[in-house]
Amino acid sequence: MAEATMQQATKRNKQVVLKEYVKGMPTEDNFELRKSTILPFINPDGTKAVLLKNLYLAVDADLRRQLSGEDYPQIQLKPCAIKRGSVISGYGVAKVFKSTNPDYNEGDYVWGITGWEEYTMIKDDPQFLRKIKHYPDVNKSYYTGLFGIGGFAAYVGISNVAAPKQGEVVYISAAAGGVGQLAGQFAKLNNCYVVGSAGTDEKVHLLKNKFGFDDAFNYKKETDLGAALTRYCPNGIDLYFDNVGGPLLDEVLLHMNPNSKIVVSGMISQYNHLEKPDGIHNLFHLVTKRIVMEGFHIDNDNLNYYDEFVDKVSEMLYCKNITYLEDPKDGLENAAAALIGIFYGENIGKQVIVVADED
Amino acid sequence: MAEATMQQATKRNKQVVLKEYVKGMPTEDNFELRKSTILPFINPDGTKAVLLKNLYLAVDADLRRQLSGEDYPQIQLKPCAIKRGSVISGYGVAKVFKSTNPDYNEGDYVWGITGWEEYTMIKDDPQFLRKIKHYPDVNKSYYTGLFGIGGFAAYVGISNVAAPKQGEVVYISAAAGGVGQLAGQFAKLNNCYVVGSAGTDEKVHLLKNKFGFDDAFNYKKETDLGAALTRYCPNGIDLYFDNVGGPLLDEVLLHMNPNSKIVVSGMISQYNHLEKPDGIHNLFHLVTKRIVMEGFHIDNDNLNYYDEFVDKVSEMLYCKNITYLEDPKDGLENAAAALIGIFYGENIGKQVIVVADED
Repeated sequence: MAEATMQQATKRNKQVVLKEYVKGMPTEDNFELRKSTILPFINPDGTKAVLLKNLYLAVDADLRRQLSGEDYPQIQLKPCAIKRGSVISGYGVAKVFKSTNPDYNEGDYVWGITGWEEYTMIKDDPQFLRKIKHYPDVNKSYYTGLFGIGGFAAYVGISNVAAPKQGEVVYISAAAGGVGQLAGQFAKLNNCYVVGSAGTDEKVHLLKNKFGFDDAFNYKKETDLGAALTRYCPNGIDLYFDNVGGPLLDEVLLHMNPNSKIVVSGMISQYNHLEKPDGIHNLFHLVTKRIVMEGFHIDNDNLNYYDEFVDKVSEMLYCKNITYLEDPKDGLENAAAALIGIFYGENIGKQVIVVADED
Repeated sequence: MAEATMQQATKRNKQVVLKEYVKGMPTEDNFELRKSTILPFINPDGTKAVLLKNLYLAVDADLRRQLSGEDYPQIQLKPCAIKRGSVISGYGVAKVFKSTNPDYNEGDYVWGITGWEEYTMIKDDPQFLRKIKHYPDVNKSYYTGLFGIGGFAAYVGISNVAAPKQGEVVYISAAAGGVGQLAGQFAKLNNCYVVGSAGTDEKVHLLKNKFGFDDAFNYKKETDLGAALTRYCPNGIDLYFDNVGGPLLDEVLLHMNPNSKIVVSGMISQYNHLEKPDGIHNLFHLVTKRIVMEGFHIDNDNLNYYDEFVDKVSEMLYCKNITYLEDPKDGLENAAAALIGIFYGENIGKQVIVVADED
C-alpha cells in the first residue's frame, strides 16, 4: 500500500544527459534524452533542500567547456564541469515546487543554476539561485538572458569595463546574440556610433531595424574582413566588444584606433577547440596604439549592483529605450539541437528552451 | 683659395648606413660604414638649424622595424623609417656644435633623435631633442637609457600603467635589458616580489645581486617554461611586465592570477619577424581571469611628467635606491655589431655606442 502511494506520487522527469564528452563541435550523439522519474518529496533526512520545476533554460555558448568535462576553476558563478552520464547543468528560470530551505517558498519564481530536466532537486545551499523580482511587462524567460548572466554581462561590459564616450565608434561581433544585441543598445544609449556583425542577412536586418545599430554587416558574405572593417568603420574602432575571438579579433587589432579599448566578453569562435585555440598574431598593435584589452566575466564581486541593474534596465525596457529578442524552442526534446545550433549561428536572439508552462 | 679654405674646414663624418633593408635577423651585410665629410657651417640660406656632435647612441631593439623601411605611424616619438642608403637614425646624446636655432646654443648637451654618425645636421625644428639637465653623479650617457625613452618607459610602465601594489608578484622578461632592469627596481620600490628572467647565468646573477630582484632564472636553461614559472612564481603572477612577447607571453597567460595585469612594453622576440609574428593562443584566459592587458609607449602626452621623472630618479640614483648598468661599445665601427648583438641577448645592461669624448 505504501509502495502504491509512492508510485502514484512519482513524477515524470525528462532529462538531457551528457552521453559522451564533446570533442570539437557538439553533435546529437553527445546527448541523450533520459526518461526518468522523481519523488516530489524532499527533506527525508531533515536537511534543507529545494525542488525546482524548471520553466526556461538558457542556451549559453560558454556551456561548451563543461561539456568537455572541464571546469572554469576561476569563475565562481559557472555551472561545474558536467560528468559523463549526468544531467546538463546551466542557467535557467524555475518555480519552487517544494522547499525546506527557509530562503525559498513554494511558488517562488527563481533564476540561477539548475538542471536540463523537468525537476531539479538542490540540496543544501544552491550554488547560485536568486528570487525573481516581478516587473510588469517583463517575461520571466528574460531571466535566462536580459536579466540573467548574459544581459548583466552586456551591461557591466559596456557601463563599467568599456565605458565608451559619446561619438566613439563601437564595433560588436556576434551582435545579434544574447549579449551582443544588448551591448550594442547600451552603447547606443551612450551616444556611440555602433556597428555590428552577424552571420545572416536576417540578423543584419534586425541589428539595423530592431536594435538600432548604426550599421551592420554579414561577415559570412565578406571575403576580406579587413576591407569590411575599413568600409564600416572608416575612422577606425574606439571600442571593440568581442564575443568571438580568433581570426576576427586578429583582424580587428589592425583597425583599432590609438588609445582604444578591446573588451573581451566571450570567444565563441574558439569554444569548440579550446584545447588548441587559434593564434592571435597582431598583439604588437597593443604597444604601438596603446590599446587596453580587458577580459571580464560576471562574478560575485559585480553581483552587488545586479539589483540596480535590473531596476534600470526594466525601466529602459518599459520606456522602450531597449528591446530584447529571444529565440524560444519548445521542449527538452529540442534542447540538444538548440545547443548545437548556437555554434552554427542558427539562433536569432537569445536561445531559450521552454520546458514547462509557468503555472 | 676659397676652395682651399672649404677643404680645410670640412670635418670627417663617419656614418653607419643601412645598405640593405633587413629581413629576419639583421646581419653585418645590412650595414655599411661610410667615410663621409661634413661642412661645419650652417645657415647658408638663413633657416634655423643645429649641428650636433654625437657622443652616445642608444641601441634600441625597436629600431628593428625602421630597418625594414617601415614606420610606426602611430608613435610620434619614434625615428622615422630608414631608407636604403641612409644613415641610421635613433636616440642619442650629443653636444651642440653649431646652432642658428634660438632654442639651442653651442656647447649645450642634448638628447633625442639623431643620426648614427659623428655629426648630424638638423634643419628646421628637430623631431625630438631636449636639453640635458645637469645632475652631479649622472653620466650623460644615461640619457640614452635611464633618462631616455627606455628608462622613462620603465618608470611610466610601472608607476602609471601597472601601479603594482605592495606584496604583489611581478614578473619581468628581458629583465637585464635597459628597460627590464629599471622596471624591476621600480617595482621593488613599490615593495613587490619581483622575479626576472634573462638569457645567461651572468645576467641572472646581476638581477639577484645588483638589481635586487627577489629571484631570477635563465630561461634558456629551462626546458619547460611553464614549470619554471610555477617554480619561481608558485602563487601566480599579479603583474607581467612584458618586454618579449611571443611564446613566453603565451605561457605566462596560464600563470596569471585572477584580476591581474599584463603591461606590454615591448616584444623583442617578435621584432625580426613582425611580418609574421607568433600566434598567441591563450587569450581566453583574459576572460576567465579578468586580466587587463595594456600596451603602451612613450608619446607626447606622457612627456609632460618627464621632468618630474628625471628629478625623482636622479635622486633615487644619488641615494643608491636604484642602480643602472650600461654596456658601452666604442666607436661607430662597432655599432652594427652591437645592434645585431642585442637580438642575440649579447648585451648586459643598456647597449650604448660611444661615438666621441664629451669635450
